[in-house]
Amino acid sequence: MQLTRAADYGVRAMVYLAGLPTGRRAGIAELAKAAEVSPVFLTKVLKRLTMAGLMVSYRGAGGGFSLGAPASDISLLDVVEAIEGPVQLNLCTGACATPVAACHRQAWCAVSSVWMHAQAKLREALVQASLDSLARESARRLEAMRSAEF
Amino acid sequence: MQLTRAADYGVRAMVYLAGLPTGRRAGIAELAKAAEVSPVFLTKVLKRLTMAGLMVSYRGAGGGFSLGAPASDISLLDVVEAIEGPVQLNLCTGACATPVAACHRQAWCAVSSVWMHAQAKLREALVQASLDSLARESARRLEAMRSAEF
Repeated sequence: MQLTRAADYGVRAMVYLAGLPTGRRAGIAELAKAAEVSPVFLTKVLKRLTMAGLMVSYRGAGGGFSLGAPASDISLLDVVEAIEGPVQLNLCTGACATPVAACHRQAWCAVSSVWMHAQAKLREALVQASLDSLARESARRLEAMRSAEF
Repeated sequence: MQLTRAADYGVRAMVYLAGLPTGRRAGIAELAKAAEVSPVFLTKVLKRLTMAGLMVSYRGAGGGFSLGAPASDISLLDVVEAIEGPVQLNLCTGACATPVAACHRQAWCAVSSVWMHAQAKLREALVQASLDSLARESARRLEAMRSAEF
């Protein structure tokens, strides 16, 4: 039940973009440096984010990447799901799960209800965090750290 | 972030054992049938559960498996962690995670706080469910289903 490295790096890149001044784009080298990952690996991750519409890629001079929507409208859950697919703790807890389609035990299995409850709590925590708030809070903490150093 | 099939089957076997009358043991064939998995696969899963002390294996005539503690004292989290290791959403959210050991960004990264919060919510949901309550609730639902059929 651990986040993939792809999702972790994708989140880093998205939060970095969310912290840039309005209208500023970032190239792959800048994003890879910010996310502390190789540009080759990050390119694959960004492909999923652009396909999901969370990121926009511009070609040519002045090109680069920007967010596909306002940072306040993109949640951590959006980013994770764009990269990993639906956050789903077990086979029986999918959005389309029905007693017939997912697991024939579901109609009576009390554990299935717990997986669903746990999944709802997990999703709730991730949907409440917007890229905007994450970028602002990270910048505030970094600033406080730097101030304390001097 | 999905449960392994091993953990799913392990949970099924443990809940089944929790629903047996006090003192009754179950052999591998009975447990595999209850969990709807092959005895070969389940044997590997049960090894982890016995190593963790959650299950006890008895050899010889009258042998089989029983719970290693009262069903009310074993949580869903206990079972999952015995099979999969600690429920940990990201590298930075481990019990031993420190800014130095886990990720040098942790001191300022706001996303790390969200992973920790989400992980706490997930663990909370799993620790609140005891094998005892899961076995009783499953039996109640199964009984209600059967009554409705006739």
